[in-house]
Amino acid sequence: MIAFDLSAGAAQQALSPAGIEFDAQEARARYATAVWCQLIEPGDSVAGRIIGARGPVAALEAVLADGEFPELTPKELVDARKRWLPRLSAGAVAGSLAAAAARGVTLLTRGDPDWPTQLDDLGAHAPLCLWVRGDASALRRLEASVAVVGARAASHYGDHVARELAAELAASGIAVVSGGAYGIDGAAHRAALRAGGLTVALLAGGADRAYPAGHTQLIDDVARRGVVVSEVPCGAAPTKWRFLQRNRLIAALSAATVVVEAGWRSGSLNTAGHAAALSRPLGAVPGQITSATSAGTHRLIREYGAQCITSADDVRELLGMPGETDAAAPGDGAYTGDATRVKDAMSTRVWRDATEIARRAGMAADVVGGILGLLALDGAVESGIEGWRLARIGG
Amino acid sequence: MIAFDLSAGAAQQALSPAGIEFDAQEARARYATAVWCQLIEPGDSVAGRIIGARGPVAALEAVLADGEFPELTPKELVDARKRWLPRLSAGAVAGSLAAAAARGVTLLTRGDPDWPTQLDDLGAHAPLCLWVRGDASALRRLEASVAVVGARAASHYGDHVARELAAELAASGIAVVSGGAYGIDGAAHRAALRAGGLTVALLAGGADRAYPAGHTQLIDDVARRGVVVSEVPCGAAPTKWRFLQRNRLIAALSAATVVVEAGWRSGSLNTAGHAAALSRPLGAVPGQITSATSAGTHRLIREYGAQCITSADDVRELLGMPGETDAAAPGDGAYTGDATRVKDAMSTRVWRDATEIARRAGMAADVVGGILGLLALDGAVESGIEGWRLARIGG
Repeated sequence: MIAFDLSAGAAQQALSPAGIEFDAQEARARYATAVWCQLIEPGDSVAGRIIGARGPVAALEAVLADGEFPELTPKELVDARKRWLPRLSAGAVAGSLAAAAARGVTLLTRGDPDWPTQLDDLGAHAPLCLWVRGDASALRRLEASVAVVGARAASHYGDHVARELAAELAASGIAVVSGGAYGIDGAAHRAALRAGGLTVALLAGGADRAYPAGHTQLIDDVARRGVVVSEVPCGAAPTKWRFLQRNRLIAALSAATVVVEAGWRSGSLNTAGHAAALSRPLGAVPGQITSATSAGTHRLIREYGAQCITSADDVRELLGMPGETDAAAPGDGAYTGDATRVKDAMSTRVWRDATEIARRAGMAADVVGGILGLLALDGAVESGIEGWRLARIGG
Repeated sequence: MIAFDLSAGAAQQALSPAGIEFDAQEARARYATAVWCQLIEPGDSVAGRIIGARGPVAALEAVLADGEFPELTPKELVDARKRWLPRLSAGAVAGSLAAAAARGVTLLTRGDPDWPTQLDDLGAHAPLCLWVRGDASALRRLEASVAVVGARAASHYGDHVARELAAELAASGIAVVSGGAYGIDGAAHRAALRAGGLTVALLAGGADRAYPAGHTQLIDDVARRGVVVSEVPCGAAPTKWRFLQRNRLIAALSAATVVVEAGWRSGSLNTAGHAAALSRPLGAVPGQITSATSAGTHRLIREYGAQCITSADDVRELLGMPGETDAAAPGDGAYTGDATRVKDAMSTRVWRDATEIARRAGMAADVVGGILGLLALDGAVESGIEGWRLARIGG
């Protein structure tokens, strides 16, 4: 039995800096969730399973009381307790709650109406809660959303494409989700903000701290006009593990994922992998095969069935939305078929009669006559007393 | 009944400039084939059907005698006669045979041992014969071959990629087939020649005339060290129709087709369409989505199932040949899994014991101990009396 105060009073006390009053039951649930955030790393499916089965309070009480967990194997339980208990600290939890309150970061739990239910597709790996800076209700409006992600060390080309795609998508009401990083992520957030659209940044560290520090202003802007989200508590550092787990949230929160640029082993391939594992549509922007920053996107197209994305319309198609333009099929138009053979046999200078044109074209004269009539209607050929000739363009 | 001398004597007379003697039957067959080449345009399936059924001599005799063709509908026969007969000219046939002999262009017919039988996949649209400059026997050695085609107005990038791919493929024994045009085609031929490999140019006009004229030297080089091929007789002009039909030969002759660069309506999409219709593997090289010369290749990848080609290895894979490198899966290596969490919890400066590392990593201490042992074997961490730290790279 480990001593830890999970009473309503202690919970209400720890939650008080946020200035919102919760009834006893709600306060205990929120406090226990904040404690769990401190104990576990993102994606801990053992915690996910017992909290899913019992709720955060009962699950935590059972852990503290060294209780039975028939849903776990003995080894799972022993290992989990060894992972979790060394981190148990009421002070650390109170500190993260105070930091959250100070920075306007609110705690969003699964029962909240703003909870983005698409995250539940992650099953036992779903986050317990989200720490949110900005308009949490925006998280309910992500049916039309796309993760625009990619290399930190983006090329000028990648940066340009990320901006163009994000601006056009955001302007047309599609939310742009990304990771707040340098390179592609930052370009996408910035363009979406500039287009007056919704953008969501998912951070690997606490939502109270901007990472990278050079993006402090950008992440503040995203929080003010969109929303900044993390599953780790305020004060938590962005470790590599948390980056990888944050990527699963980017993929799960968005209706589709598009990788703009990525090196052969880029972290954005990890986001793409999560999108594929969730059966969310995946797209990748091609680039020059001589460019190292496109090696990863080509790999996604070749080996992982990513759609080749060349425009915002292609992204809309990925989302199952109708495109804005409808292109004609290749090979149609002026350069195939009998009309081509007839025009090949004609001249812009010399008048020829239909029989001569037919002979040159190797076609029956009556067929050629019909085609000449149609071409004349199109203005492509002209007739005179000496026969037919090709119309001079602009002449 | 149309008067035309198809006797063995007339045939041997017309074929004599080539300096090869043919027996009566062979001479008549070759001469009739040369006559047919004069009468029809490439891909004439009515001619293909009756010649396939009766052979060139009997088919031509029946046409001249206004005979019955139970294999054709009355309208097909009437239309065909109107197409063919205005072109009948013994003088024109003799002229094309003399031009062929003068330029070293030989006539390859279906019965010849050098006939590339993969062309028969075109069915009734297969060419009746080929006019060949260079080493006709090379046409039997195209099991490992790839059509490298693309825009005439290639970009610097496309030109570079065509050269690199063709050089590497040709050097590894894969024949490079193309159309002799400016841009991608020329770059591919040139690189294949320079690499000492086999290259084949298919021309839309007669094999005796270089088109474009600016490629006279290149096409001569291809003829000298590889082979130049056309299905139209010597002296025939390269019309748009013949370009389109020539494209079907490029696709049919090659084991796979790769489009390096193509505009949205490029003629190389037509070659790609023929490859797809023949169920030959199709690849396309991606480029920047802002480049008009890659719009067509992206379209092939998006809409026509073309494989995204990023290297000569990818082309070998398209041909069903083993690649030369075997890449590891994305996301493997150093940046996932428990080892990442352990390393995240460590420092290159500060020594920490396993318990402290486990607490920081949120993992069980015994698991961390095992991982530290493995990392030490790899040289990624080092142990001392105060615990563990990350190895300094190169330190």
